[in-house]
Amino acid sequence: MAKRLKRTRAKAAVGVDAGGTYTKIGVVTPDGRVLREAQIPAEVQAGPEAFAGRVAGLVESWTAAGGFALAGLGLGLAGDVDSERGRLRFTPNLRGWDGFDFRKALGRRLGCRVAVENDANVAVWGGFIMELKRKPRNVVGVTLGTGVGGGLVCEGSLYRGSTGSAGEIGHNVVEPGGELCHCGRRGCLEAYVGSYGIVRLARRVVEKDPARARILTALCPELDRLEPRHLSQAADQGDEAAKEVWALAGGYLAIGLANVVLLLNPDVILILGGVSRAGRWILDPVEKHFAAQPFRTAFARARVKLAAATRAGWIGAAMLAMENAA
Amino acid sequence: MAKRLKRTRAKAAVGVDAGGTYTKIGVVTPDGRVLREAQIPAEVQAGPEAFAGRVAGLVESWTAAGGFALAGLGLGLAGDVDSERGRLRFTPNLRGWDGFDFRKALGRRLGCRVAVENDANVAVWGGFIMELKRKPRNVVGVTLGTGVGGGLVCEGSLYRGSTGSAGEIGHNVVEPGGELCHCGRRGCLEAYVGSYGIVRLARRVVEKDPARARILTALCPELDRLEPRHLSQAADQGDEAAKEVWALAGGYLAIGLANVVLLLNPDVILILGGVSRAGRWILDPVEKHFAAQPFRTAFARARVKLAAATRAGWIGAAMLAMENAA
Repeated sequence: MAKRLKRTRAKAAVGVDAGGTYTKIGVVTPDGRVLREAQIPAEVQAGPEAFAGRVAGLVESWTAAGGFALAGLGLGLAGDVDSERGRLRFTPNLRGWDGFDFRKALGRRLGCRVAVENDANVAVWGGFIMELKRKPRNVVGVTLGTGVGGGLVCEGSLYRGSTGSAGEIGHNVVEPGGELCHCGRRGCLEAYVGSYGIVRLARRVVEKDPARARILTALCPELDRLEPRHLSQAADQGDEAAKEVWALAGGYLAIGLANVVLLLNPDVILILGGVSRAGRWILDPVEKHFAAQPFRTAFARARVKLAAATRAGWIGAAMLAMENAA
Repeated sequence: MAKRLKRTRAKAAVGVDAGGTYTKIGVVTPDGRVLREAQIPAEVQAGPEAFAGRVAGLVESWTAAGGFALAGLGLGLAGDVDSERGRLRFTPNLRGWDGFDFRKALGRRLGCRVAVENDANVAVWGGFIMELKRKPRNVVGVTLGTGVGGGLVCEGSLYRGSTGSAGEIGHNVVEPGGELCHCGRRGCLEAYVGSYGIVRLARRVVEKDPARARILTALCPELDRLEPRHLSQAADQGDEAAKEVWALAGGYLAIGLANVVLLLNPDVILILGGVSRAGRWILDPVEKHFAAQPFRTAFARARVKLAAATRAGWIGAAMLAMENAA
């Protein structure tokens, strides 16, 4: 028995988080131990077949080096994913990748099960496991990046909805007829708290009264290069314009999340993604808004938690692959 | 065996739907056969103990008459219900009933299991069983009455959320800073499509240009007595003001339901309650809005269905009681 245990390599799965700019990829065991980790450029224009080839090549080099038995591969893709067929139905950020059969391409070459999921779903699943230790029953995850995505954990399981498209919190309309969103509609939450929405708000606020934005313009003299991190830094240093931008963006986030709390009555709202690093600038307006709601029971329960974890995406994808393979 | 079957009375459960004005109550078998049905005044001011006594008395008269074996009792209450403890935590319509232990009071006297639930949840569960035959996996139910409630069926089960408060679709903010809602906030969906919201919209439209409301004012000369049914009748007869009111209310319903479709990606949106009798006046704006959405997969899947069934509430409560007792 001892001999057999010695020969058995640890089971682990590969997770891949494919964004529009780069791809994060790694190997993780069922109990969350990270064995390998890498980041490769997305090279979207080279097409999905080339992408699958590069991913498979990297995985083969890892399996050849040994140390684990490949239990599956999970792939998170930015777009509307048909998980049952293992392909993208629609994607604004991975142009030309829709329709390609990732499951077949990767599964044949690597000889393992492949799970394909929406990138926000895998990030929320990863956050649920790594940050929340699977403890809460009901979790709403929001990914704040260029776009605003989301994923739902209902009664401890990832809820995908009827076509795998659930969790689009970013397109909750918070201001009918409001700012233009990347989706083509007006007034979506993303149009205010996606990084492009925050930056657009900031330009307006600065142009209205540049004198209030002295710290911000010192940090980032070219408004065209403004990023949410400049706004957090400036607000930390007392910049009035930056504080106003966060109050505006955070106010819209609060309205959108309150709608979700009233609908889903979660234990935790987990905020992931780059913009979550704004910390209390994004959290304070939400908590203030929640405290003023008349529906006491639901809002008292819903804890808002920031998770800056940058590995949630690929780890969540790997974990989903292992669960599907089990 | 045949002898034993003959002696065994059909199992059935009592369902109770307690609204602010009257209580609907009945007996139904697991396969949906209605054995008894009645309606009694709510008499809210007489208190919850008197209410429980009247319900128990009626049920005892039914069980004494025979014909079925009591498998349980389900009670739907308008308000924030703590299902685990069998009581109301908060209720604007059943004043003074919060905190009373309905489960204990009814369970002791009738000697059966008692399930206590939010009234919108039981109505949606009843509609899911009776109208949809439990076929779709994911259903969003909306109850359009004085208030606007909702209930969610996720993967074939009633989703209650972490404190039993899930499904509050009526308080999705569709117009920040907009009309005042009964909950005390501004711009909730209910403030536009709850019957009081529709009537408020109608008064404004009529006062703006009374000449466009000739048919409506002939149907209901006193604006103070206006009800949604007058607006449907007037619109059917070509009244321009009434048509404008439905376009406005339906437009807000469309925004709220689109938010829910993007979040939950359901197979069916089931619209219940009195206002659903407005038929195409409420359905057309929603379907038009859905058809114009960029997220094709989710909106193509979500079928919107009107269910005028007035029994959904008590039947849903009874069905839930049988499931809990099983």
